[in-house]
Amino acid sequence: MPNLAPEGELQLVPIGDFTTEAGATIQDAHIAYQRWGQFRGDPKGDNNILVVEHALTGDSNAAEWWSGAIGPGKALDTDTWCVICTNVIGSCYGSTGPASTHPDGAAWGSRFPALSVRDQVRAERTLFTQLGIHRVHAIMGGSMGGARTLEWTLLYPESVGYACVMAVSARASAWQIGIQEAQIYAIVRDPNWHGGDYYSTGTSPDEGLAAARRIAHLTYRGELEIDERFGTSAQEGENPLGPYREHDQRFAVQSYLDYQGQKLVKRFDAGAYVTLTEAMNRHDIGRGRGGLNKALHSSTVPTMIVGVDTDILYPYHQQEHMSRNLGNLLGMHKLSSPVGHDAFLVEARQMDNILRNFIALTSA
Amino acid sequence: MPNLAPEGELQLVPIGDFTTEAGATIQDAHIAYQRWGQFRGDPKGDNNILVVEHALTGDSNAAEWWSGAIGPGKALDTDTWCVICTNVIGSCYGSTGPASTHPDGAAWGSRFPALSVRDQVRAERTLFTQLGIHRVHAIMGGSMGGARTLEWTLLYPESVGYACVMAVSARASAWQIGIQEAQIYAIVRDPNWHGGDYYSTGTSPDEGLAAARRIAHLTYRGELEIDERFGTSAQEGENPLGPYREHDQRFAVQSYLDYQGQKLVKRFDAGAYVTLTEAMNRHDIGRGRGGLNKALHSSTVPTMIVGVDTDILYPYHQQEHMSRNLGNLLGMHKLSSPVGHDAFLVEARQMDNILRNFIALTSA
Repeated sequence: MPNLAPEGELQLVPIGDFTTEAGATIQDAHIAYQRWGQFRGDPKGDNNILVVEHALTGDSNAAEWWSGAIGPGKALDTDTWCVICTNVIGSCYGSTGPASTHPDGAAWGSRFPALSVRDQVRAERTLFTQLGIHRVHAIMGGSMGGARTLEWTLLYPESVGYACVMAVSARASAWQIGIQEAQIYAIVRDPNWHGGDYYSTGTSPDEGLAAARRIAHLTYRGELEIDERFGTSAQEGENPLGPYREHDQRFAVQSYLDYQGQKLVKRFDAGAYVTLTEAMNRHDIGRGRGGLNKALHSSTVPTMIVGVDTDILYPYHQQEHMSRNLGNLLGMHKLSSPVGHDAFLVEARQMDNILRNFIALTSA
Repeated sequence: MPNLAPEGELQLVPIGDFTTEAGATIQDAHIAYQRWGQFRGDPKGDNNILVVEHALTGDSNAAEWWSGAIGPGKALDTDTWCVICTNVIGSCYGSTGPASTHPDGAAWGSRFPALSVRDQVRAERTLFTQLGIHRVHAIMGGSMGGARTLEWTLLYPESVGYACVMAVSARASAWQIGIQEAQIYAIVRDPNWHGGDYYSTGTSPDEGLAAARRIAHLTYRGELEIDERFGTSAQEGENPLGPYREHDQRFAVQSYLDYQGQKLVKRFDAGAYVTLTEAMNRHDIGRGRGGLNKALHSSTVPTMIVGVDTDILYPYHQQEHMSRNLGNLLGMHKLSSPVGHDAFLVEARQMDNILRNFIALTSA
């Protein structure tokens, strides 16, 4: 039996030196994870593990950020299933990332290498091996979590029973690279960035990170939803229609985006944001596998694809493309929502149906 | 007979002191314009003037930037019609803007007031009055040019025979304000911005303007088109998949966007960019007119609406909304194109059909 972390408790596991796809090494890397529900079954064969992969700025506390889906009696029923969520390498919630301490005692900063989604999955796989787990029942995730899920099915098909890939594509599109690069640029142009080595300066590129998040948020949320909420309303007490442009006289949507930016600055590291955003630029399951469709076709893991009709970051045609080409398609679901990309986190009722359907199909 | 500029020649016309909707005054303002084709008819009644309104960073040289549409034998046939295009106030192509010389001899800079789309139209109307023209056969334009066209029909319905409003909405959406504000922010955070008063410093916020343009370009072009062209290809001779993130090791799409940014820096002023972008934030035909639908319904000028099926900046449902509510709808056209917003400039064949249809309907 694998010796797993106590229910819900954050545990850090050393995975040793980790060398990336591009050949850089992170010495003495750690992966953080959390678990809910009792493990049952064979750690090398059939068991009840469901792996949940978080999105870009997520953490391993899936029972909190996906509370509608995980828990007793919920779609991912912790009375039946053992749910595990790891913090991705490169992040700042326990796993080793740019803000972590290098073996020399200072922060990794600019010495932290670039990561690919495959690196993220390889590091996670190493964690599972450390835990004595060689196969899981199913893996699922949305956005960056969906990219990781898809790479799992291609890197380690023998280790994954089923997969559910949500709100993502088989590779970065040029548009995604462009808008993600705009976010990276906002951060690295912040004078407090210091080439990524700001950790000992007593400051951090908060303005840049907030600017990046404001741009990102506009790709996470559908324009219909944002417009329904804010339209051209002025922020209360402010006048964005004055005789001169003034930065503190805002439309309501500006105040909302400022708030989203500030909220992220309080909880996330700019270096991790750059590292993980760049990993999404490198997302391409076709690389070294004879191209996109050949890679999709080679997939043997039964995989469900989920998309959102109003997603502008990962438009629905990208999920349709995956569904048409996947070697072993388990099913396809479309979330219908004005919310856009974030619908997989927000549309609890529809997601509940989809996840119950997914779990039922994997248990048939 | 109005005394118009020689064929194709840029002419600057003083329009005196101009006071904005919000109450600031631009002393000794000028409007630049160009003309093609002979004027015929009554400057106060029926005549052959077609006014073409340019988009955000456009100029009055419509015969160049819309060469597929304007000229002898073309949809806007200069053998028949007298085509006039003005440079919008706040721009940097002849009309008074932030880079222009203030009466005190220095640049306007931060003293240049905020503009609304109504201000732009009021200034243009003043020019026409100066030229002795009190009515035009038709006005047309896309994007910011479409916003101006729509405001013409509501501010001066007695002066406009017909209108063609392309790739725009009846007001800014919250999403548009958000993404436009991200562009403004990129500029005003550039250390060379100097609060808008950089004109005497010998530098200019080129980095910020380029960053703004890169973001903007991703809203002007459909993700399908950009992805078809670039996908995840590396820029020739560069490796974006190296062991560390390096800004000069780019994907092809980054190089393309860098080029778009640099191209704009060479031809456009950052202050004008901020002024005109902010004017689009203020675009709202419902303001002071009992709301959006009441304003649309009050319109008496026969107006054609044109949209693009893949436009993410002004999604097609915004044009559908206008067409459903306009008081005097002349017709509705949808451009089908992977190009997105810019299709009204790029899809020459479809635009030719649409413009010929528009002109025919106005001549019936």
